[in-house]
Amino acid sequence: MKIETLRWFNNRLEMIDQRILPASFEYLSYDSAASVAESIRSMVVRGAPAIGVAAAYGVALEALRLSSEPFALSLSKGEGFDKLSPNGTQNISASDFKSGMEAGFSALAASRPTAVNLFWALQRMRKVWESVATQAPQQVAQRLLAEAHEILAEDIRINKAMGANGAALLKDGARVLTHCNAGALATAGWGTALGVFRSAVEAGKRISVIADETRPFLQGARLTAWEMVQENIPVTLITDNMAGYMMAQGEVDAVVVGTDRVAANGDVANKIGTYMVAVLARRHNIPFYVACPLSTIDLSIAAGKDIPIEERSVEEVKGFRDCHWAAEGVKIRNPAFDVTPAELVTGLITEKGVVLGPDVHNIKKLMSP
Amino acid sequence: MKIETLRWFNNRLEMIDQRILPASFEYLSYDSAASVAESIRSMVVRGAPAIGVAAAYGVALEALRLSSEPFALSLSKGEGFDKLSPNGTQNISASDFKSGMEAGFSALAASRPTAVNLFWALQRMRKVWESVATQAPQQVAQRLLAEAHEILAEDIRINKAMGANGAALLKDGARVLTHCNAGALATAGWGTALGVFRSAVEAGKRISVIADETRPFLQGARLTAWEMVQENIPVTLITDNMAGYMMAQGEVDAVVVGTDRVAANGDVANKIGTYMVAVLARRHNIPFYVACPLSTIDLSIAAGKDIPIEERSVEEVKGFRDCHWAAEGVKIRNPAFDVTPAELVTGLITEKGVVLGPDVHNIKKLMSP
Repeated sequence: MKIETLRWFNNRLEMIDQRILPASFEYLSYDSAASVAESIRSMVVRGAPAIGVAAAYGVALEALRLSSEPFALSLSKGEGFDKLSPNGTQNISASDFKSGMEAGFSALAASRPTAVNLFWALQRMRKVWESVATQAPQQVAQRLLAEAHEILAEDIRINKAMGANGAALLKDGARVLTHCNAGALATAGWGTALGVFRSAVEAGKRISVIADETRPFLQGARLTAWEMVQENIPVTLITDNMAGYMMAQGEVDAVVVGTDRVAANGDVANKIGTYMVAVLARRHNIPFYVACPLSTIDLSIAAGKDIPIEERSVEEVKGFRDCHWAAEGVKIRNPAFDVTPAELVTGLITEKGVVLGPDVHNIKKLMSP
Repeated sequence: MKIETLRWFNNRLEMIDQRILPASFEYLSYDSAASVAESIRSMVVRGAPAIGVAAAYGVALEALRLSSEPFALSLSKGEGFDKLSPNGTQNISASDFKSGMEAGFSALAASRPTAVNLFWALQRMRKVWESVATQAPQQVAQRLLAEAHEILAEDIRINKAMGANGAALLKDGARVLTHCNAGALATAGWGTALGVFRSAVEAGKRISVIADETRPFLQGARLTAWEMVQENIPVTLITDNMAGYMMAQGEVDAVVVGTDRVAANGDVANKIGTYMVAVLARRHNIPFYVACPLSTIDLSIAAGKDIPIEERSVEEVKGFRDCHWAAEGVKIRNPAFDVTPAELVTGLITEKGVVLGPDVHNIKKLMSP
């Protein structure tokens, strides 16, 4: 089954609502940077690469919105109505288009702090915008939309290249543990960690997956389990605290996870609980791989300690959806990510190949053109 | 607030229904070994010491039931009705009492496999029974009930002694992480791990508690958080996969957990996820203590690998109560306990003192009269 996490339809961005999977499968539709930013914040769409693609479309949608609709609607506080022609359809001025676009970029950049793909995509869209800044807003919008389409297509190509590189690391019959969801739902399709599993199966390897449920948002129980069931890849669900038991029982041959940001020294930020899995894998001499497109490597950050870690609402930990179980009056913490030091990472799986024992040197080499 | 997890009322055993805490606080009433066995299996009562006390009362209740009610009711398949006097109140024969009691012992022994306190309590009740076997069933029942009362009172005395021994290990201001619930609700009152916290606070130490939510049954979020809030002991709730993050942030000074069975070599079986916490504590040089009454040490088991680990219903992992979120068709594992090797245990906190670096020698010494 082909999972289209994001798709362009009727001049709008449509995204699978990942908050209600797997009970319901539903697309939501977006037509502005602000609405896409909110969809990222509320986790309608999640997963570092998918957030990057969504942000790119958010920029394009804002350009389309500003350049196509009657001018007044793109203004706040009613200013500039005097500039309108009687039918109210006069085009937006270059300066108002610029300020409107900057507002869109700001809204998207403020949606979630940890995944660097978001900022990578915004930077790439900004460069394209600057390259055509002298053209009319309608033309700028078309160019930005083409770039968003290209980023989506590129993401799938990159995932398949990573998948092939990673699949070579898994032996036939391997039982592979993963945390959270680094699948088609976390990308434009195919997936990073789950893309490695899909490629391994495509290459004829019989692998089975162990999925941590991944509290509090339960991406493992809801999304990874659902994706693997769709693909008929054998998958076993466990609670996060069972990973050590499974390893001690000798039931895990390898770990493959995704990442939201990799620092210049190879430290890996990923969904909360990833660090725990890495520590356990090291104790049991189980290889720990991170599926990591180059867009996730942030050379501007020297080490993991400098990666901003998002703390989300305590409501997520009190229960799930309408089910609440936590005792009243208890204080709650909800860091959404943690950092796994490079020394615990057996290898980074990228579209350019696998970097074993990642460090500042081989990552710099990897990132050089 | 004094928490009476189990209490004797109107010639029945009453127990707090821990499945519905903290949303509802309710006592359920029991009058037979079979019903108490079911309450243990379904986790109305849980926690190794509490299970032991419940089992002792189950034996006493069965003796009371068999010795007091009309004979026919204590028989199966209608056999022996011919022995009944017209009013059906003839006393039970010694042989029928014996077989009825054996059936009760078997039902209780089959309720849950991992916590040794259950078997310890049954063994102790059997010895008492044998010591008065020649007496009339009614007298046997009274003697067994007195023993159950003594086991309950003893459990609280032992917890307070353990608490004092453990409190000495915690420095003022300590931030202590615990897993699952080893509190008043896991015992006859006071608690093992949480008893250490209560004793530390009683001794004037300002400590704060970090509680893992403890999937799938959520004893941490529901029970430990609730107990600490009742006591006004500062408590912070995290999901199980956040423990490593908290340690890496330097926010954990010590770990104290309970246990369901300790092998002769010091290996510790406890709630699933305990092993993960111990591995992380070792990596961060954080002391890992196990609050362990002598009744939890099983010299008949050489090492942890021989401790039977209960696998519970997969329904527990699909969600919680009526909330289901796991993808359809996924395979599920649900081991309820794991084993932490002795080498990861800084010390066993017992009523006879603290055993640092537990091994076969100092545990044998501890257990010698």
